[in-house]
Amino acid sequence: MNAKDIIYLDANATTPMAAEVQEVVKDAMANAWGNVSSSNVLGHEAKRYVERARKQTASMIQAKPGEIVFTSGGTESNCTILHTFAKVHRMKGGGDISVPHIITSNIEHDSVQKPLEQMHRDGQAHVTFVQVDKTSHAVRVADVLEAIRPNTVLITIMLANNETGVIQPIKDLSQAIQNYNQSSENRVYFHSDAAQAIGKIRVSVEDLGVDYLTIVGHKFYGPRIGALYVRNLEVGDCPLEPIFVGGGQERHYRAGTENTAMIAGLGAACELVATNIQTYQLHMQTLRDQLEEELSVALKSHGITFNGRNSLSERLPNTCNVSIVSGAFNGRTVLENCEMVVASVGAACHSKAGSKASAVLLASGIPYESACNALRLSVGRETTSQQISAAVIDICNAVHSINQSLNVSADFHTNDNHL
Amino acid sequence: MNAKDIIYLDANATTPMAAEVQEVVKDAMANAWGNVSSSNVLGHEAKRYVERARKQTASMIQAKPGEIVFTSGGTESNCTILHTFAKVHRMKGGGDISVPHIITSNIEHDSVQKPLEQMHRDGQAHVTFVQVDKTSHAVRVADVLEAIRPNTVLITIMLANNETGVIQPIKDLSQAIQNYNQSSENRVYFHSDAAQAIGKIRVSVEDLGVDYLTIVGHKFYGPRIGALYVRNLEVGDCPLEPIFVGGGQERHYRAGTENTAMIAGLGAACELVATNIQTYQLHMQTLRDQLEEELSVALKSHGITFNGRNSLSERLPNTCNVSIVSGAFNGRTVLENCEMVVASVGAACHSKAGSKASAVLLASGIPYESACNALRLSVGRETTSQQISAAVIDICNAVHSINQSLNVSADFHTNDNHL
Ligand SMILES: Cc1ncc(COP(=O)(O)O)c(C=O)c1O
Ligand SMILES: Cc1ncc(COP(=O)(O)O)c(C=O)c1O
Repeated sequence: MNAKDIIYLDANATTPMAAEVQEVVKDAMANAWGNVSSSNVLGHEAKRYVERARKQTASMIQAKPGEIVFTSGGTESNCTILHTFAKVHRMKGGGDISVPHIITSNIEHDSVQKPLEQMHRDGQAHVTFVQVDKTSHAVRVADVLEAIRPNTVLITIMLANNETGVIQPIKDLSQAIQNYNQSSENRVYFHSDAAQAIGKIRVSVEDLGVDYLTIVGHKFYGPRIGALYVRNLEVGDCPLEPIFVGGGQERHYRAGTENTAMIAGLGAACELVATNIQTYQLHMQTLRDQLEEELSVALKSHGITFNGRNSLSERLPNTCNVSIVSGAFNGRTVLENCEMVVASVGAACHSKAGSKASAVLLASGIPYESACNALRLSVGRETTSQQISAAVIDICNAVHSINQSLNVSADFHTNDNHL
Repeated sequence: MNAKDIIYLDANATTPMAAEVQEVVKDAMANAWGNVSSSNVLGHEAKRYVERARKQTASMIQAKPGEIVFTSGGTESNCTILHTFAKVHRMKGGGDISVPHIITSNIEHDSVQKPLEQMHRDGQAHVTFVQVDKTSHAVRVADVLEAIRPNTVLITIMLANNETGVIQPIKDLSQAIQNYNQSSENRVYFHSDAAQAIGKIRVSVEDLGVDYLTIVGHKFYGPRIGALYVRNLEVGDCPLEPIFVGGGQERHYRAGTENTAMIAGLGAACELVATNIQTYQLHMQTLRDQLEEELSVALKSHGITFNGRNSLSERLPNTCNVSIVSGAFNGRTVLENCEMVVASVGAACHSKAGSKASAVLLASGIPYESACNALRLSVGRETTSQQISAAVIDICNAVHSINQSLNVSADFHTNDNHL
């Protein structure tokens, strides 16, 4: 595959930094390299860049600048929340009887699921993995509420799934959790991993009502760092326990000399989103819909299903998760046979896991065969209508060539039997 | 202070990215933005950048590429080691009787000292802070060895101190620890934070014999990320417990989508150091020596002492820690009165801590008055001989103007008394 001919349909895996963002990073590398902690003119200039980025980041999600903590990425943001609730509890002096309880879904990203599994194994927390509804592919509010126990401290549910694009009922959940909190002595905090939603749909912490939100730059044409929103952090409404203690940066919530250039770039990426989200969303949705329509026609004879597309849930505007039903069109094999399309079969970090079915799709209630055959096609800002049509032809050609080689080898096999 | 006139003598706080490094970061932002975990042409290209950087980083310290793990910075590298030894021990099932014991010095950077204090308080570890010798300003090998207990798991001692520049006897220590390990059932691991040494003196893990080494990009004209060296990591000789579990990046040692652009930049910065370290070292040492000589002459009447300069220890070639003995020339006030010199009185992360004496200097045996008056002047690659002379004049002018206002206010005070 030649890099020039690529049709990139893998925006959920990562996106390039927008040109504007790259310019900001370059400027900051050259002009804001002072140590933010230093009491001198260079330190002050660097701090100005960081604080502007903090405002831009906050503004994108309707938060206050003081509610933003910069991190090295989504994984760190997610881990910081889990760490916080394991630790806050230890500090309260809970013995073995009252290990904290955390509720999550069974379709979270590995950066939530894996640490929770580990905490469960290590006895740091009890974890309930609420199953998503197999029709809507989303958690049901009632199921989450039912899972609450007297020692529940945290509920963490992603805003939109990275494979199906299905948007989870975060606003309804936070309303229900607030109601629960009002009638309970115990306070349950609510975190949402918005890695995949930001830059694709409008995300407002006011609307969503969450206590914590994970922000991941490289999913919305920003740099490879992240941020964490913490409601009313300044007044200590929601606990936050640093993973890194040391030089006291980020108001003691995240030690380590600030990655000013990348932070400035993140701010710029957030500002682009804040300004253009409607345009981005419409563009992506138009192309995704075109993609699904053209695929439906082109692969009609094979029968295709769109995983996550249903009348009960909203989906991200850019994500098409499609399975070719008839035949053994393993998703990975289809992609390997494409000449231009770059896409994936699930989370990038699973791309080397062999060809077994996506755990998220299975958890979402997609049948095993479909889960094995699934392709995740995710469009981006730079995707064009021509590319979509070319991509559909490319995928069809891949399917046909697999089909042919299957037939040939079937023939061969038949001949073989005669020998 | 005008940014153009600045004489930057704060290279120990941070350094700008070298022009070559900035070029590499720009190239990687534009051309290697794929997700390293993705099995496609863009992912492979990104991986190529990351693996080249791994080779460059390893090569700089005479390590193998497989022994390098990229992190978000020095703080994360240090914390990862401390986390490892708290955790490995828990996994071995040690009860309260055998909390692991960790030995460190009393002059470590906050990113080692603070987490260790916390672990000690939380009962995760017992920590011995070995005092450095008040004459050499370095730990004594015998003192460290004496601190070893049957449950000692880790010794962590920095390679060079960030304030005095004093180089600690790491090679002798590792030899002594190896001897101890040979005659003991218990194995004690040895970590060194080389944040301040790399880029200023030659650093080789072969020579030093350490098990772990912390690498911090922004101290040697690289980006704001870091790396960790772990001896024979591939064969599991030295334990490493990830802080971040999730997508399994960095061979499961550090989850989170790779910050490819910054990693590529770190590699380039390491290659610059590997190629030019002798030139850098000579340049810095020449200018630092000029600085100390000219300061001695210019401030002779006030009497000055160079903290950390003694016949017993080696110092970093770039660091001058100087106190003006007579009078109340508080370091911070002197710097505030400088018109061109940008420097600091200690670690950047302490720059807002008020004007109390540096804890590191006090721990190093510097008298209280001198510790309050200390300036840390650290030269860099771009410092020139003309700048040094101008800096000395600038500092002298600051001292004189403080002196004058002290005299004036003393006079005023005297007059006042007459009223
Ligand atoms: C839903 C979700 N959360 C978190 C992450 C983690 O982000 P990162 O790998 O950049 O740390 C990702 C992407 O990788 C994601 O899709
Ligand atoms: C000796 C030493 N170790 C570790 C660090 C921490 O590096 P960072 O703040 O980039 O995480 C620094 C510098 O700040 C340092 O001087």
